[in-house]
Amino acid sequence: MARYKAIIEYDGTNYFGWQRQVGLRTIQQTIEDSLYCLNGELPVIVYGAGRTDAGVHALCQVAHFDLDKEREPFNILQCINSNLKNEEISVISVEKTDDDFHARFCAKQRSYKYVIFNRRAKPALHKNQVWWVIRDLNVSKMHAAAQHLVGRHDFSSFRAKGCQALSPIKTIDEINVYRKDEYVYVEISALSFLYHQVRNIVGTLYNVGTESWSEDYFVDVFKSKDRSKAGVTAPASGLYFSNVKY
Amino acid sequence: MARYKAIIEYDGTNYFGWQRQVGLRTIQQTIEDSLYCLNGELPVIVYGAGRTDAGVHALCQVAHFDLDKEREPFNILQCINSNLKNEEISVISVEKTDDDFHARFCAKQRSYKYVIFNRRAKPALHKNQVWWVIRDLNVSKMHAAAQHLVGRHDFSSFRAKGCQALSPIKTIDEINVYRKDEYVYVEISALSFLYHQVRNIVGTLYNVGTESWSEDYFVDVFKSKDRSKAGVTAPASGLYFSNVKY
Repeated sequence: MARYKAIIEYDGTNYFGWQRQVGLRTIQQTIEDSLYCLNGELPVIVYGAGRTDAGVHALCQVAHFDLDKEREPFNILQCINSNLKNEEISVISVEKTDDDFHARFCAKQRSYKYVIFNRRAKPALHKNQVWWVIRDLNVSKMHAAAQHLVGRHDFSSFRAKGCQALSPIKTIDEINVYRKDEYVYVEISALSFLYHQVRNIVGTLYNVGTESWSEDYFVDVFKSKDRSKAGVTAPASGLYFSNVKY
Repeated sequence: MARYKAIIEYDGTNYFGWQRQVGLRTIQQTIEDSLYCLNGELPVIVYGAGRTDAGVHALCQVAHFDLDKEREPFNILQCINSNLKNEEISVISVEKTDDDFHARFCAKQRSYKYVIFNRRAKPALHKNQVWWVIRDLNVSKMHAAAQHLVGRHDFSSFRAKGCQALSPIKTIDEINVYRKDEYVYVEISALSFLYHQVRNIVGTLYNVGTESWSEDYFVDVFKSKDRSKAGVTAPASGLYFSNVKY
């Protein structure tokens, strides 16, 4: 047995998220299928660092898998990518790793980047790649409000129904909101996240950005632990799983 | 009669280029159709600064058109974009302009940006938006070679069959080749271009970037005025019409 670590990029638009689901086209399943021929026709299980939702993209998903015997990492990479050539999934690197490395359980920090396209006219060039927001966003107010989320808190206000986490307590390491021309970025890092937590945070910061909500009101909503008081769930199309630290 | 100037962005992937062609879906025709209802149901002709080919995109195409009577520019903008909502075309601005303004004939400089994605693994996130080049490109050698093209020259080596220009002489104002991470950009400005000139230049600079060709050999090919000696036509997907100066 030999264990490998892979870095994977994907456009999530046409997939039902990362996780294998019977009868649905998912990222995990598609990569597992691409490895089948490499493993003496035995099934391979691919473990990802983060289970992204339907429509969510990845700039840098990390995964590991075991093969029945040791093979040249470069040959594995070429084989997977050859099998994925008609998919919107690309494996950027493959390396041999220790047998006790686990892409999910060894991760110390995960980062997401959310991309808002902030302009009156529809973006013609970024279909399914951004959240198009027409109203002018005040990014410095969004950034200031977001700083209240840093640290260990109860994130019930941003927790979607169906979240399987045992507790709503999470620790956010860092959030940055900044603008480059018409693009507004929300970058957020934590050990782990609740279901839809990033998208619910972005959808709520939107209310601060449009100046519908004051920073104080945003904090009240956060502290209320009541999901119904917070903002919309920002669309999956703007969300990118962007980094994992081990 | 009232004349308007519009700035237009589009993803050219699913269009047969800018110019109206019977029975084909083009950018010009689609925008003209979107204006029909604004003009007392009379046809509107939209004149663009540059006639981009099939699959070529625009960050900033400039066009003008006449309406039967004066209307509020913002209302025109909203009406066009509402009609274009299912298209990959977006009108960014509309303003009233002088009756002697002509988007094509008044242009003093046109700029194109070519985007190469330079990495071994396929880009999962930029389908139809870049030229994927696997071999590592030496960008400083490409930039140095490209400087020989600046000025007034015979560009027959980069002129495609079917070019309707009367002369192969053109004046390139500026070319810059530079890298940002995995992206290599070729930016080129001139009053006007021959058919496929930018894509043929990029396809030939590729040979310099891979170090298959020396700078001297590139210059020999340029001076030969022989299209068959130059490189491939870089794909339309990487090309963006990026600016017009008046």
